[in-house]
Amino acid sequence: MSLKDLGEFGLIDRIASHATAGHGVVTGIGDDAAVTALSPGMQLLTSTDMLLEGVHFRRVWHDPRRLGRKSLAVNISDIAAMGGIPRWALLSLAVPADLSVEYLDDFTDGFLSMAAEHGVTLIGGDTCASSNGLIISVTMMGEQSPEKIVRRSGARPGDDIWVTGTLGDAAFGLSLLESSQSGNAPQPPSNLPLEGGEVRPSKDIDEYFVSRLLDPSPRTRTGKLLAESGLITAMIDISDGLLADFGHIAEMSAVGGVIQLDALPLSGAFRQSCAQDPDALASYALAGGEDYELAFTCPPSAREKIKDIMKKCGISFTRVGIVTEISDVNVLQANGAQYNLQLSGFNHFR
Amino acid sequence: MSLKDLGEFGLIDRIASHATAGHGVVTGIGDDAAVTALSPGMQLLTSTDMLLEGVHFRRVWHDPRRLGRKSLAVNISDIAAMGGIPRWALLSLAVPADLSVEYLDDFTDGFLSMAAEHGVTLIGGDTCASSNGLIISVTMMGEQSPEKIVRRSGARPGDDIWVTGTLGDAAFGLSLLESSQSGNAPQPPSNLPLEGGEVRPSKDIDEYFVSRLLDPSPRTRTGKLLAESGLITAMIDISDGLLADFGHIAEMSAVGGVIQLDALPLSGAFRQSCAQDPDALASYALAGGEDYELAFTCPPSAREKIKDIMKKCGISFTRVGIVTEISDVNVLQANGAQYNLQLSGFNHFR
Repeated sequence: MSLKDLGEFGLIDRIASHATAGHGVVTGIGDDAAVTALSPGMQLLTSTDMLLEGVHFRRVWHDPRRLGRKSLAVNISDIAAMGGIPRWALLSLAVPADLSVEYLDDFTDGFLSMAAEHGVTLIGGDTCASSNGLIISVTMMGEQSPEKIVRRSGARPGDDIWVTGTLGDAAFGLSLLESSQSGNAPQPPSNLPLEGGEVRPSKDIDEYFVSRLLDPSPRTRTGKLLAESGLITAMIDISDGLLADFGHIAEMSAVGGVIQLDALPLSGAFRQSCAQDPDALASYALAGGEDYELAFTCPPSAREKIKDIMKKCGISFTRVGIVTEISDVNVLQANGAQYNLQLSGFNHFR
Repeated sequence: MSLKDLGEFGLIDRIASHATAGHGVVTGIGDDAAVTALSPGMQLLTSTDMLLEGVHFRRVWHDPRRLGRKSLAVNISDIAAMGGIPRWALLSLAVPADLSVEYLDDFTDGFLSMAAEHGVTLIGGDTCASSNGLIISVTMMGEQSPEKIVRRSGARPGDDIWVTGTLGDAAFGLSLLESSQSGNAPQPPSNLPLEGGEVRPSKDIDEYFVSRLLDPSPRTRTGKLLAESGLITAMIDISDGLLADFGHIAEMSAVGGVIQLDALPLSGAFRQSCAQDPDALASYALAGGEDYELAFTCPPSAREKIKDIMKKCGISFTRVGIVTEISDVNVLQANGAQYNLQLSGFNHFR
C-alpha cells in the first residue's frame, strides 16, 4: 500500500495511533492546535530543524527507522544544549506519493522509539504530498526553570572549554558512506584494536562510525545535570563541528578561545582509522560536525564537581581548551604552534 | 545577490535583524533553543503547517510578500480556532540557491507584517538549501486559560452551527488563477453590483477573490472573544471547506449536523460571479476551502449574546445549520430536499 492509497488523514491516523499520552499533554493530535501545560515555574524551550532528502539524508544510506530516530534526536539535542527537559514534539512530513506505508511505519517506529527514550510525546504535525523527495520538519519543545537554563552567551575568559564523548566519528562515518558510494571506500585495517583493547573486524568498525552518524544520542541527561549544577557558564551542541560551534559561544559571549589539538577526545577506532593522516584526523574532529555532543564552559574551580557529574552520566567529559579575552578562536598543536584548519563548519547554501 | 552568496548564517542574520522583542520572549533567535514564558495560569497552544512550492503555492501566483503573510496566517488561524492568543512563531525555510535576496526580503517583510498585526514574535527557525523549490514550515504557539480553550469535541445536539465572514471566495479565486493559467479564464461580467450596492470593474472583482485566497485574515480577535464568552461548545477554522471541517467537529463530538444550503454566507461578488451555476456556487462554498473563517457551535439560547460579540468583531456571523444526534452531516436545499455534493475536502495525496 502506498501513501496515495492511504491519503492524508489515513497517514495522520496511522501516526496518531502509535502516539501515547505524556507529561503535561492536555490535548494531543487531532484538534486545531495541541494543548500542553508547563510544569509550575518553568519556561518554554523551543527549537526546530528541517531535513531534506538529498541535502541532509539519502534514502539509500539512511534506513527509515534510523532516519526517524535522527529526525527527533537532532532537535532533542538543541533542548539538551540549553539544559532543558525535552517534552513535546511536532512532526511534519511531505511525502512522495509512491513511498510505501511500510517505509513510513518504520520511520514512525524509529521516531517514537527516540521519543520514548527521552520522555518526549508527539503532540501534532502536518502531512502533505511532496513531488520531490521526503521532507521532514520537527519542532521540539522542552522546559526548565529560568535560573537553570544555560545559554551560549555566558562564557568568561579563564573558563575551561569541555566537550562530552568523542569527536569526529560521525564525520568519518559520512566519509565512509561517500567513499563507498563513489567506489573509493577507504579500507580500514582489519582487526583494529579498539579503545578497550578489544579487537573487532573492520565491518563492525564501519558500522560503529556509520551508526554514530545515522543514530546519534542526544545528551539529554548530561545537559540537564550540567545545567542544574549551576556550575557551567555556556553550552551548545556540536552539530557543525567544535570549531564552528565553540565559535558561536565565543561570538555570543564576546570572548575567544584556545583549543588544544592533542586534547581532543577521539575514539580508539577513529584514531586508528586516521592514524596515517593527522590532518584528516584534525579536520573531522574540529570541523566534521554531526556528533551531537555538548561543548560547555566552566570555571577551573569546578573541575572536580564536573568530574562527579561525569560519573553520573556514563560518558566522558574532556577539557579541550580555555576561554580567552581576545575574540579569536585558535587551535594549538602539542608544541605550542598554531594549527591552521581550512574548513570551518558546513555552509548549507554552498 | 542570491542566497548562495549570502549563506545560511547571512540569511538568519538578515531575518533576525527584522524580528523584534515581544510578549513573553526571554531569548529569541540566536541560541540552541528559544526561551519564552507563558502568562500565569495559561496553557500552551501549538500548531504547525508546511507549505511546498508546486503543492500549496506557485511563485507565479503568490508574490513573496503575500506568501510570507499567508505562511503565518494559516498557522495563526489554528490558534484562533482554539480561542487562543497567538504569541510566538518559528519559521523554517528551504531555499533554492538561485532565489534572490530581494525575494526573501519581501517574504520576510510579509511574514513580519502579519506577525505584527496579530501580536506575534518570530523567535527562531531553520534555514537550508533546497534543490527543488521553496519549502516553508511554520510552527505557531499561543496561550489561553485552560477553562477558555475551545476544542472540536464539545458540540451537542441542538446547538446552532455558525460561520464567520463569507464562504467560497478563496476557492473561486483559485479557480480564476487556474483558468487564467490555462488560458480559459472565466469572464466575470463587468460592472458587477457588490454587496453594498457599489459597482466596480471586473478587474477589482478578480483582485478581491485572489486576495481572499492569497492574503487571508486569521480571525484572532473573533476566536478569542468567542472563547472568552464561555458560550460556544466547539470551534474549528475552515481550511478544507465547511463540509469537511464541520465533519471534524461532528466526528470529534460524536454528533452530526444539518447545513442549510441557502443560509450559507456568500459575498455579493461571489454570488454574482457564479449566478449562472448554482452547483459551482455550492461546491466552492461547501468544499472549496482556504477561507480561514471560523465555524463554531453554540446553544440557541446564546443567539443574542453571539450577535453582541459579532458587533465587536466587525465581521458577520451567520447561522448555517444545527447539530444533530445522528452522526451524518447533511446539506438541505431551501425546499427541504437533500443536496448531494460530490466533493468533500481536499486530499493532499490525490
